[in-house]
Amino acid sequence: MKLTGEMLIGQQTVKGSCDPIHAINPATDEQLEPAYPGGTQVEVEHACKLAWSAFDTYRETSLEDRAKFLETVADEIEAIGEDLIERAVAESGLSQSRIQGERGRTCGQLRLFAKTVRTGEWLDVRIDPGMPDRQPMPRVDLRQRHIALGPVAVFGASNFPLAFSVAGGDTASALAAGCPVIVKAHSAHPGTSEMVGRAIQSAINKCGLPEGVFSLIYGAGYEVGTALVTDPHIKAAGFTGSRSGGLALWKAAQSRSEPIPFYAEMSSINPVFPLPEALKVRGREMGKAFVGSLNMSAGQFCTNPGLVIAIKGPDLDAFIAAAGEAVKESAAQTMLTPGIADAYASGVKGLSSSGKVKEVARGQAGEGPNQCQTGLFVASAQDFLGSEVLQQEVFGSTSLVVECTDAAELEKVAEHLEGQLTATLQMDGADLDNAKALLPILERKAGRVMVNGWPTGVEVCDAMVHGGPFPATSDSRTTSVGTAAIFRFLRPVCYQDFPDALLPEAIKQGNSLKLKRLVDGKREA
Amino acid sequence: MKLTGEMLIGQQTVKGSCDPIHAINPATDEQLEPAYPGGTQVEVEHACKLAWSAFDTYRETSLEDRAKFLETVADEIEAIGEDLIERAVAESGLSQSRIQGERGRTCGQLRLFAKTVRTGEWLDVRIDPGMPDRQPMPRVDLRQRHIALGPVAVFGASNFPLAFSVAGGDTASALAAGCPVIVKAHSAHPGTSEMVGRAIQSAINKCGLPEGVFSLIYGAGYEVGTALVTDPHIKAAGFTGSRSGGLALWKAAQSRSEPIPFYAEMSSINPVFPLPEALKVRGREMGKAFVGSLNMSAGQFCTNPGLVIAIKGPDLDAFIAAAGEAVKESAAQTMLTPGIADAYASGVKGLSSSGKVKEVARGQAGEGPNQCQTGLFVASAQDFLGSEVLQQEVFGSTSLVVECTDAAELEKVAEHLEGQLTATLQMDGADLDNAKALLPILERKAGRVMVNGWPTGVEVCDAMVHGGPFPATSDSRTTSVGTAAIFRFLRPVCYQDFPDALLPEAIKQGNSLKLKRLVDGKREA
Repeated sequence: MKLTGEMLIGQQTVKGSCDPIHAINPATDEQLEPAYPGGTQVEVEHACKLAWSAFDTYRETSLEDRAKFLETVADEIEAIGEDLIERAVAESGLSQSRIQGERGRTCGQLRLFAKTVRTGEWLDVRIDPGMPDRQPMPRVDLRQRHIALGPVAVFGASNFPLAFSVAGGDTASALAAGCPVIVKAHSAHPGTSEMVGRAIQSAINKCGLPEGVFSLIYGAGYEVGTALVTDPHIKAAGFTGSRSGGLALWKAAQSRSEPIPFYAEMSSINPVFPLPEALKVRGREMGKAFVGSLNMSAGQFCTNPGLVIAIKGPDLDAFIAAAGEAVKESAAQTMLTPGIADAYASGVKGLSSSGKVKEVARGQAGEGPNQCQTGLFVASAQDFLGSEVLQQEVFGSTSLVVECTDAAELEKVAEHLEGQLTATLQMDGADLDNAKALLPILERKAGRVMVNGWPTGVEVCDAMVHGGPFPATSDSRTTSVGTAAIFRFLRPVCYQDFPDALLPEAIKQGNSLKLKRLVDGKREA
Repeated sequence: MKLTGEMLIGQQTVKGSCDPIHAINPATDEQLEPAYPGGTQVEVEHACKLAWSAFDTYRETSLEDRAKFLETVADEIEAIGEDLIERAVAESGLSQSRIQGERGRTCGQLRLFAKTVRTGEWLDVRIDPGMPDRQPMPRVDLRQRHIALGPVAVFGASNFPLAFSVAGGDTASALAAGCPVIVKAHSAHPGTSEMVGRAIQSAINKCGLPEGVFSLIYGAGYEVGTALVTDPHIKAAGFTGSRSGGLALWKAAQSRSEPIPFYAEMSSINPVFPLPEALKVRGREMGKAFVGSLNMSAGQFCTNPGLVIAIKGPDLDAFIAAAGEAVKESAAQTMLTPGIADAYASGVKGLSSSGKVKEVARGQAGEGPNQCQTGLFVASAQDFLGSEVLQQEVFGSTSLVVECTDAAELEKVAEHLEGQLTATLQMDGADLDNAKALLPILERKAGRVMVNGWPTGVEVCDAMVHGGPFPATSDSRTTSVGTAAIFRFLRPVCYQDFPDALLPEAIKQGNSLKLKRLVDGKREA
């Protein structure tokens, strides 16, 4: 596929007129062609108006038509072939196998949402039939379904150039809900974005949908993003990225004359709690496995285990020693962008120069540019509790072990944590009471709690929660991965005493969609 | 029941130390005893700490225990007997039959939430069982349920001293979700608040729940409310009241270091669209029925029909004439508070002196204090579109008829409206195409769309939506009336690879709660 560097506004391609983005191959620091000139307020407005004009039609597409569209997007992405893999590898520094896996996840995710759309469960149909003879007052006929919120702005993530970018989870769930989408491409992978954007553009054409259902815009600074979330036609936004970037856009969304839901997935250090018996039984083994999770994709996962919290003693020492050995053997890996590599280096320096941590081990130093050198540090619970630096996320493969004097201090540290995407218990049978005592805290702190696994690896399925209390996300009531993500872009509408001819299909008397509706308080079988 | 003027902090009663509130009987302007001295930051913090300490226990009460608690609250409210009716009538100026009806709704609402709690559907249990042999990667076992957000602050409404106050919809849905509640009593009805608060306090005692599940605080100014929504232990808030009050507290909630969901139900003018054929067939009859809805409880409903939008001509003239006659015959009614009566008078004056409206009719002037004199005005669509004053809510029984030249202008006016709680179509069979053209606009503007009814009267049931786009509410994704209101106070948590002994009951393998779970993409029958 030949890249042109143009924005995609509906079915048109438009060359921007602002400062260009150039992708950089982080493995070589080479600049990749073509240039991607940024859009202006004019293109943002144009895309938003197109999205608005497509909205009423797109949100009423049949379940089948919408599902087929999502499947067509997946087909079109696969049809790009190896060009997409090569470009995404070049733009991200991630391995070919990782990008291949991510393409599979991205297309699988689109097809899973197609399945979810077809079930119609997300419509949450509720019917309270009229009771004209009820005393003292008759009851009117009331029917509820969910409708799409409106056009959605999506901000792609740096660390998932496919699965959390142009056709990633936010886009898939918004399209599934019936919302047109305008994507602000992440400046680290404009070429990958153009390829995937053209796949969506083509799917819209093939499915005969209104062109405004999708647009793709580039922009080097904050202007385009801010223009997008403050456009009156945009009714919600999804974002995956840094805390500072997420909060700035969140504030812009809340400062509108009509505030909108802004779903930001921001920062998480994903605490791991190896409990005493588990440490005793398999401390060394666990230490090695932990470093395996820590090193995945150079630690550039939202769910990277950046914190280990445990009770100090010989068993924890064994865990730390084994982890340290594994860290020393860890090869350097290329990070996503020069900016991320710089931030990682300065984050590690902040930790090591804090005077509060002891370095356990560092991994091998890399030779090329933008290398991530694994790091493992240890600190006392007391120092951790008293230091903001120690509590901050370092994006990359560095982790901090917090040593607690006893179970009470461990619970104190857990209570002190900010909101997280995940929390992990490493436990054996004899740790059950400890785990039961910790669980209420972890449920309050994290969107996903796991036992004897590692937080990296996020399954796309019905039960997944990739979310959590602030600042892990800006809205703990939702998830950005898995089929429940569709609920982020819906709102309920109630229809009272409608003639059947005016009712939307999902809530007509005949139930042609065969939905399992809640009728008069009872769920239909 | 003897009133003491004390706040209820857990199971304690505490006399405030700040400026006292006195209820005023709006029918006589007499001050009612006792005085209700306001709380300070100290009592707010105390109540929030108690709520926090109760949270982990209360959120894990069994479905049956929680349902019984809600039913016990209803029983205890009924046990107050006529004292409650008398006090609420004296504090609100509303009629005895209205307050009796409202008590029925309040207790019915609590019992309906008990039924909802027992079904467990709100837990939204989703299970994706592990697939250890899946290729290329095994799937872990993932289970999702919803848990309560945390302690909730509730701000009672002036216009529903029972159904939207201390034990009203916000409190009932938060308690149903498993959230402790702290109510800031509305200063217009502190005595009613104390009575109902004591009923909840007693129910907590009878059910053996932790005392922090409920507290009730008074405060004359904004301090107590602001302290409440900014307390770090509060994790969500519900509010019903004015746009200015709602937005001020919403901003405080968003400015916290951890922003929280703030559900404000604020302003709505509830447009009514009498379509041409309906006007022709039954314009006069409709005009009378419209004024009946307009006058209910002196127009002090969130869903009061403050706007009529129709195409001008003889049929609309007949509607206006009939409505005008009914308005002239309308007796004056006592409003809820002197402040509301003043705001009503100045709102009507703003309309009538705008130079843009024609007075159709005024109702009878009242003799006592705080009287609401019904008003009906008419303006052209052009003037309406150009005037902010004409578009503002006047809380009370005044409505404005907007005359459009044709269907296109009518749609333009509809598109121009802010978000609404309700929108109403008055239509006959021959209006179907017109209605179909309007419906997409009305769905985007309102939480409830109705045909041939009037917006006042909100059924508490599964299908109700009492919500809508900003500024009708601060969050269009929800409803504050009906069983779906429970979702406002919940968030999903995912449990990965948990041993059964550590899993919460709702997602254990055995399904002892007999929930219809979503297992591997299929809904259990």
